[in-house]
Amino acid sequence: MEKQLPYKIYLSEEEMPRKWYNLRADMKQKPAALLNPATLQPLREEDLTPIFCEELVKQEFDDTTKFIDIPQEVLDFYKMYRPSPLVHATFLEKALDTPAKIFYKFEGNNTSGSHKLNSAIAQAYYAKKQGLKGVTTETGAGQWGTALSMACRYFGLDCKVFMVKCSYEQKPFRREVIRTFGASIIPSPSDTTEVGRRILAEHPGTTGSLGCAISEAVETAVSNEGYRYVLGSVLNQVLLHQSVIGLETKAALDKYGIRPDILIGCTGGGSNLGGFAAPFLGEMLRGEASYKIIGAEPASCPSFTRGVFAYDFCDTGNICPLAKMYTVGSQFIPSANHAGGLRFHGMSPVLSELYNQGLFEARAYEQTSVFEAAEMFAHAEGILPAPESSHAIRAAIDEALKCRENGEEKVIVFNLSGTGNFDLYAYKQFNDGTMTDYIPSDEEIAEALKALPKVE
Amino acid sequence: MEKQLPYKIYLSEEEMPRKWYNLRADMKQKPAALLNPATLQPLREEDLTPIFCEELVKQEFDDTTKFIDIPQEVLDFYKMYRPSPLVHATFLEKALDTPAKIFYKFEGNNTSGSHKLNSAIAQAYYAKKQGLKGVTTETGAGQWGTALSMACRYFGLDCKVFMVKCSYEQKPFRREVIRTFGASIIPSPSDTTEVGRRILAEHPGTTGSLGCAISEAVETAVSNEGYRYVLGSVLNQVLLHQSVIGLETKAALDKYGIRPDILIGCTGGGSNLGGFAAPFLGEMLRGEASYKIIGAEPASCPSFTRGVFAYDFCDTGNICPLAKMYTVGSQFIPSANHAGGLRFHGMSPVLSELYNQGLFEARAYEQTSVFEAAEMFAHAEGILPAPESSHAIRAAIDEALKCRENGEEKVIVFNLSGTGNFDLYAYKQFNDGTMTDYIPSDEEIAEALKALPKVE
Repeated sequence: MEKQLPYKIYLSEEEMPRKWYNLRADMKQKPAALLNPATLQPLREEDLTPIFCEELVKQEFDDTTKFIDIPQEVLDFYKMYRPSPLVHATFLEKALDTPAKIFYKFEGNNTSGSHKLNSAIAQAYYAKKQGLKGVTTETGAGQWGTALSMACRYFGLDCKVFMVKCSYEQKPFRREVIRTFGASIIPSPSDTTEVGRRILAEHPGTTGSLGCAISEAVETAVSNEGYRYVLGSVLNQVLLHQSVIGLETKAALDKYGIRPDILIGCTGGGSNLGGFAAPFLGEMLRGEASYKIIGAEPASCPSFTRGVFAYDFCDTGNICPLAKMYTVGSQFIPSANHAGGLRFHGMSPVLSELYNQGLFEARAYEQTSVFEAAEMFAHAEGILPAPESSHAIRAAIDEALKCRENGEEKVIVFNLSGTGNFDLYAYKQFNDGTMTDYIPSDEEIAEALKALPKVE
Repeated sequence: MEKQLPYKIYLSEEEMPRKWYNLRADMKQKPAALLNPATLQPLREEDLTPIFCEELVKQEFDDTTKFIDIPQEVLDFYKMYRPSPLVHATFLEKALDTPAKIFYKFEGNNTSGSHKLNSAIAQAYYAKKQGLKGVTTETGAGQWGTALSMACRYFGLDCKVFMVKCSYEQKPFRREVIRTFGASIIPSPSDTTEVGRRILAEHPGTTGSLGCAISEAVETAVSNEGYRYVLGSVLNQVLLHQSVIGLETKAALDKYGIRPDILIGCTGGGSNLGGFAAPFLGEMLRGEASYKIIGAEPASCPSFTRGVFAYDFCDTGNICPLAKMYTVGSQFIPSANHAGGLRFHGMSPVLSELYNQGLFEARAYEQTSVFEAAEMFAHAEGILPAPESSHAIRAAIDEALKCRENGEEKVIVFNLSGTGNFDLYAYKQFNDGTMTDYIPSDEEIAEALKALPKVE
């Protein structure tokens, strides 16, 4: 490691990646094909183009092109908030009194507050290029909806965001950011769609669910001329766009001759770890290097650590394609007391395949322990982390404490995917001491897995 | 201007300022002395040391030392979020179709969301160095309270923040950030102080005021062993610390050979413009250069543009020292419909003296026009600006549009002092179309000015 290592490493504009890295090109065993939910047969590109933008469908299916040019228009937008800094967490090292070297890539340094913008701007670009009028999507916590509203505003696209009603009511500020960027935001279930009206008739008092919001967004996209549906995680295309995080991280580490031992990201749908770890996983797949890579997930929704690797629906309503992935079952509903994000029952097919191959490990963390790590990090490094990202912080702190015990000077790099500035209800629970943990029982998971579709 | 100008200019750690610049040292006519509110005689250092930290009192009175070393402990903390980027606003230039070159210094890139942290960490450092247990302060919108809680946490100081009760209730999220950094936050008026109890007895339903919160914070500081009171604006010491903004800005401009024509900052108490413009005002005072410098203030609280230059109390309760400053009167209460911050009736004595000497001009803006500028900026540059900072954006946009009219390629640099992430009630009003303007009548200001103290 060189002497003149700064606290924050910024790449110059010339050093920034100009291509995304497609991890699938380096996989011998490719991720399994998506299945048509009606026929259970492998999806073809033409099955998806009525729903998704054409270029994005191509990217979804492309598992051979190793590098894909980032369009100039997207590079222009990236300049606004990229490169994100790679920070040498010297204050955290000191607080932990560890010989470990800790670095974090900080993706929260933009108004959307998270890494989601990396894919939102790409998806908006391809929608614009296809001559579409607009896109639809759903949002839970609101990070994706915010990112997409910013991206659509930039390209002059209409943007319709279906926000789960309870989040719409609990997060009025997220809503206002989205509105400020000119998107329409509709509490779901709504009376603007057939599926919404049906659910409202059946369950008049419902506060909605992500599954229902997805159904409304898809229906709106396919029933309006010039609209398509876009999604912020899980999909191969999203991991492709998010590879910019890992490419920048690797370039910054290489610039100072730093070789990471341990790489950590949190996992919900996989866009964060999948993007951050992509070039490092690629080196492992090509037999060029070996790293310890850790996916940090919530104990309340433990897809990797307690799920099965099987075909499952991507949504609760079972109208979306099936993916072969680690899943606790599409009917699994994370406990309502879980505040920390990462509530998706399944996982990116790419990461699922790699996890199955043993390329990385996963750990599940309870939320009070995650918020303890978040608070420790905030006090040391002066950044209020997102609950999601704090799962990665928890894992990083645990590894650094192991280094202290063993006197090992390991290099730990994690992705700080976002800030918690809009998640202060969760911090309030933690500050008030009213936050509790919930670990689903084996029976609960087994029950949810009974609904797994029978494939083959 | 060189060709290779990047979108964002970051100084390296070696290029960062290591001294604050004390603008007063270059002033021939110094700002007038503060007066004791009881005797109306000039304050001496020993009058202030029971209330303020010793070193800060020295800085308050020091109008001859041109450069003051930034303590290493403060430099260490600055590394966490400094240097802040100087951004070449190419997207805004394009949106305005202007030949002007627009740059902004972005001070919102830290968890407190504003430039206030620059002085908070310095004040906390001197309190720690003096061996104090803690500090007290008041906060309105919450930016200063957040910054101070972060700074105190870093040095292990206790921090008691009196937050105006209506803000405490309307901004629960600000409150949680402050709590997360370990400060106690007390809605004011409270029953923890004599003045608070008296006000509660007289006005049981009151939602508080900044003046009352100041009184509570001062009382708590002087009546608790090992505590002092700290303040986030107006004072000379605060402008000194905030000079780091201007020094970095100048270093970044110089690095690329850019000579600004117009410099803009918003003005409430003056910490923002006073820090940002300090080195440029210094050049003007020394006769080395000439710039057009603009202070942008709210039309609803127009200290510079409609106030008088006179001795006045710094607080509504008239218990704080008197300063010679531009003021609309300590009894002037900005309209409740004003959402955009900058509600202080007076102004930094340093800036007031310089304004009186004609070194810069001031303009007043109505808040709907300010939020229009904020929205335009957010759409173009992808950052949601603080309402306060958006006054500077409004002025910058107006200047850039003049350049379009006249075909002039002027260089406009403004300070984007903070983000609006915690000001979304105001954005909601704007998005809903329910935001209105209020311009005080001449009679209203004349009435408030009747309460000006008779000095000499």
